[in-house]
Amino acid sequence: MPTYKAPTGDTRFIVNEVLRLESYGNLPGFESATQDMTDAIIEEGGRFASEVFAPINQAGDEQGCTRHPDGSVTTPDGFKEAYAKYREGGWGTLSAPVEFGGQGLPHVMGFVMEEYLATANHALAMYPGLANGAVSAILAKGSPEQREKYLPKMISGEWLGTMNLTEPHCGTDLGLIRTRAEPQADGSYAITGTKIFISAGENDLVDNIIHLVLAKTPGAPESSKGISLFIVPKVLVNDDGSLGERNAVSCGSIEHKMGIHGNATCVMNYDDAKGWIVGEECKGLAAMFIMMNAARLGVGIQGLAQAEVAYQNAVIYAQERRQGRALTGPAEPQQKADPLFVHPDVRRMLMDAKAFTEGMRALCLWGALQVDLSHKAASEEERQMADDLISLMTPVIKGYGTDMGYYTATNMQQIYGGHGYIREWGMEQFVRDSRIAMIYEGANGVQAMDLCGRKLAMNGGRAIQAFFKLVDDECADAGANETVALVAERLAKANGELKAATMWFMQHAMADRNSLGAGAYAYMTLMGIVSLGLMWLKIARVAAAKLAAGEGDKAFHEAKLVTAKHFALRSTPQAGALRREIEAGGETVMALPVEAFATA
Amino acid sequence: MPTYKAPTGDTRFIVNEVLRLESYGNLPGFESATQDMTDAIIEEGGRFASEVFAPINQAGDEQGCTRHPDGSVTTPDGFKEAYAKYREGGWGTLSAPVEFGGQGLPHVMGFVMEEYLATANHALAMYPGLANGAVSAILAKGSPEQREKYLPKMISGEWLGTMNLTEPHCGTDLGLIRTRAEPQADGSYAITGTKIFISAGENDLVDNIIHLVLAKTPGAPESSKGISLFIVPKVLVNDDGSLGERNAVSCGSIEHKMGIHGNATCVMNYDDAKGWIVGEECKGLAAMFIMMNAARLGVGIQGLAQAEVAYQNAVIYAQERRQGRALTGPAEPQQKADPLFVHPDVRRMLMDAKAFTEGMRALCLWGALQVDLSHKAASEEERQMADDLISLMTPVIKGYGTDMGYYTATNMQQIYGGHGYIREWGMEQFVRDSRIAMIYEGANGVQAMDLCGRKLAMNGGRAIQAFFKLVDDECADAGANETVALVAERLAKANGELKAATMWFMQHAMADRNSLGAGAYAYMTLMGIVSLGLMWLKIARVAAAKLAAGEGDKAFHEAKLVTAKHFALRSTPQAGALRREIEAGGETVMALPVEAFATA
Repeated sequence: MPTYKAPTGDTRFIVNEVLRLESYGNLPGFESATQDMTDAIIEEGGRFASEVFAPINQAGDEQGCTRHPDGSVTTPDGFKEAYAKYREGGWGTLSAPVEFGGQGLPHVMGFVMEEYLATANHALAMYPGLANGAVSAILAKGSPEQREKYLPKMISGEWLGTMNLTEPHCGTDLGLIRTRAEPQADGSYAITGTKIFISAGENDLVDNIIHLVLAKTPGAPESSKGISLFIVPKVLVNDDGSLGERNAVSCGSIEHKMGIHGNATCVMNYDDAKGWIVGEECKGLAAMFIMMNAARLGVGIQGLAQAEVAYQNAVIYAQERRQGRALTGPAEPQQKADPLFVHPDVRRMLMDAKAFTEGMRALCLWGALQVDLSHKAASEEERQMADDLISLMTPVIKGYGTDMGYYTATNMQQIYGGHGYIREWGMEQFVRDSRIAMIYEGANGVQAMDLCGRKLAMNGGRAIQAFFKLVDDECADAGANETVALVAERLAKANGELKAATMWFMQHAMADRNSLGAGAYAYMTLMGIVSLGLMWLKIARVAAAKLAAGEGDKAFHEAKLVTAKHFALRSTPQAGALRREIEAGGETVMALPVEAFATA
Repeated sequence: MPTYKAPTGDTRFIVNEVLRLESYGNLPGFESATQDMTDAIIEEGGRFASEVFAPINQAGDEQGCTRHPDGSVTTPDGFKEAYAKYREGGWGTLSAPVEFGGQGLPHVMGFVMEEYLATANHALAMYPGLANGAVSAILAKGSPEQREKYLPKMISGEWLGTMNLTEPHCGTDLGLIRTRAEPQADGSYAITGTKIFISAGENDLVDNIIHLVLAKTPGAPESSKGISLFIVPKVLVNDDGSLGERNAVSCGSIEHKMGIHGNATCVMNYDDAKGWIVGEECKGLAAMFIMMNAARLGVGIQGLAQAEVAYQNAVIYAQERRQGRALTGPAEPQQKADPLFVHPDVRRMLMDAKAFTEGMRALCLWGALQVDLSHKAASEEERQMADDLISLMTPVIKGYGTDMGYYTATNMQQIYGGHGYIREWGMEQFVRDSRIAMIYEGANGVQAMDLCGRKLAMNGGRAIQAFFKLVDDECADAGANETVALVAERLAKANGELKAATMWFMQHAMADRNSLGAGAYAYMTLMGIVSLGLMWLKIARVAAAKLAAGEGDKAFHEAKLVTAKHFALRSTPQAGALRREIEAGGETVMALPVEAFATA
């Protein structure tokens, strides 16, 4: 069975040394996030994920969820008990607002925990993960009464929440939504329609599920400007907070999927279900985006998560499995064969995985810090800058992070050879589970268009200019250490390619929108490489400073420098190829008529 | 349910126009391969695969194989009947020698059929596919009696065959084999041991299975120089060809796998089973490589195959599914949304898939022609050249072909959005099935080392120099057509990167073997890009000539030019990045101690 140990040492390094979370202690919510406190949470959270969520991951995949004739859904054995422990431990409350029973810690701490849970058990972690998205929408757009009524129990984990967007004919294009919401005399709405692909839509973990549902009110415009967001509880909630009648919402079936079998992906039927509007009519899209942005960052973390667990197991296998000899002669002549670990191509895959997971962890936590700063930084200017950066980076973290998560999981499976293809070994589950993250919460092509079609141009390109400056400043400050200087030089070069690609878009995309669409995916990947490069430069600078000062764990910091160099030498060269792919434009992509794609 | 239509028009274009098979009519075995004959086989073979093998592919995945308590194995419903039709149609006899009941046609025709069958039903096609490997070993190394006894019934498909290499502790490193072969007084050997991952090891399709088994004779050296190859029939064959007693070989269990569920992957137990040596003692490796090389080309074709079927279905879905609007304004304003097909990022994935599948088809059939020419070309020099090229290219076709097969299947699944993750739609099966091709018959990292560690240096680099010249000559002859000139220019540039990378290996790899190992995978990918580029230049030249002459299907040839340009503009730029990755050497790959990979 695969194993998982939370990488708490690496997390603490990022939180304490790279992000220097304590240095923000003057900001509200950060004052209690002392290093003693955050270290303790990281260690305890890591232990919890490894000991409670991880051991039931593989069995959950084998067993899957079961829908019963009455529409109820049973999760795999052990999920209910593990979730109860999660709730009792208050693990969902870390960065939730104190006002509604949360601990009010920085989002950085919430992201740490999201990573550990998703790594330990992707399918199980999705249940509270989706509730987080619902919470953020109610928090931002709900009425005071709605917040009071729903948030405390959702934050404590007593209730869960879901996001109901997709319909059979309508995925990305939310303007096509057909679910109707008829206003009722009591101020509520009667919701009718069918939603599909509703993760965690029905389950046996909790007594109530607060569905957030996109629907159209009578006479609303046909486009996405006509959608509204509704709270539709599975069980109606009385004014005193007790549970009332069952609402007219039910799970019609669950999907048979490639992976995440432990999470119930439901068809949800709304049949004059009672719902309450969140915000105003036809303003649902904005609320939906708040929910969606939180979810997208969470999905980016899932990319990291499946890469991490696959990597950890591949590291173990590469040491235990003996096959062949080192190219430089037997490494362990007394044995009949050397460990896989001696083979450069196996090491290449392990080093690539190490560079991705450690760099991506830094990027996710850096992103979380921007979320915090966008709300809590001292000046409006700092808040704006943080908001710009995280808006820009959300599609990159989601899109590039999940692409690389799948790629990394696939490579780690490859290290197992034939055993990687066999279910018992568990590696193929990581590949199957990681695959969904490229698809849901906006397929990665949609992320690329969000980045290039919306985020780049917003406020006259303010966000991307801020990002360029961030990278340039970091490179300029790199200092004299030889490895750091190399890492900075390669990053500056990749950033130059990104700038050139951006300029190319500016010059061509207005006249030829398809050239933007044809290059968007390569641009997202290019920006992912520069973003990870930025993180590796930050990490390398810290490591070099620690080594120069003779502080801390020497081997740990030396490994960081080697890994930073590995990324710089082996991943940043792709930047030039991606730029040229972008500059190829849309001509060949769009040239052929549909008949040319028919099988001849 | 997914569909499949064999791309017979494209195959005929490659066979007739690009390879010009008829121009080899003076060579033995080619004389009967007139265009009338090959066109008929292509069309009939395509129809057979689409109509008989394809319709049971998805159900076969769902049902899988069943092992019964007596060790017998039942294949999915319909497999036995479909295989019987395959046998009756003589589809396995196309390029087998006339002497043993084959049709003696060029291997090109055998490869065409392999592609169609693997595309229609990967799991089912593996049964005769593995038998082909066993046939080639007996053909090359078996005694006259063995050939007479086994080949006619294996070629007719009355019996199947398998390849038994892997043991629980021994995959790539065949020197570790423990299966023993004790010489008996009657000239046979008693074979004892356990083999794992034996594809098609037991099944209900045929009355007899001829296992080819690697084992060690008493006192044989410990390394791979000590292995011998044995014929071990499931049922012993009497001298008159009738079936005798059951041999002491049985299926102990079947594996639960990520995919190819319709193929029985068996643990095979040999318990003093009666076997006969193929060739001499301790010379098994050479025979094994003959079998393996045939199998590796077949696996490369599987990469193409899963990409092709995924592509065909994605093309259909992209036209039927409506979501969003074209970036340039509504393409079909009377509808509520445009087809996915209008979106540049969807088109990008479809064009990439088109460029891969059509280019890879040309590469596989060009490879098959080299196999033919290596045996049958008029002069020793030509035979040598063809043998050099196919030896060099086998790891590229297997490694790059299956990497791209998986990548392409994944992209095509992505076009389906959420539906791509749902089993009923069939796309995720293509991804799961395509994954095995990167692993079996030598994991792709092993292919990369075969290419860089063995093939590059053989005969003083004769093969790679011949390849360079082939590309250079093709570029030099490109002619005046504007698109062809562009394609040639980009190919020449990529070939320059490949030459530089080769030179770098020559300068560094002797002193630092790990630098070779660390760059081998990137080199294989780089060579794959140049190889496909070469095919696209050949195709573009033919298409341009046809258009200039006003011959043939104008739209078809125009599409070839656009696709060639697409590949040149969007795929060849990777060559430079890969070269730089190679030139990064092995330092960062090998630098870290094992402890640095432990979870901190």
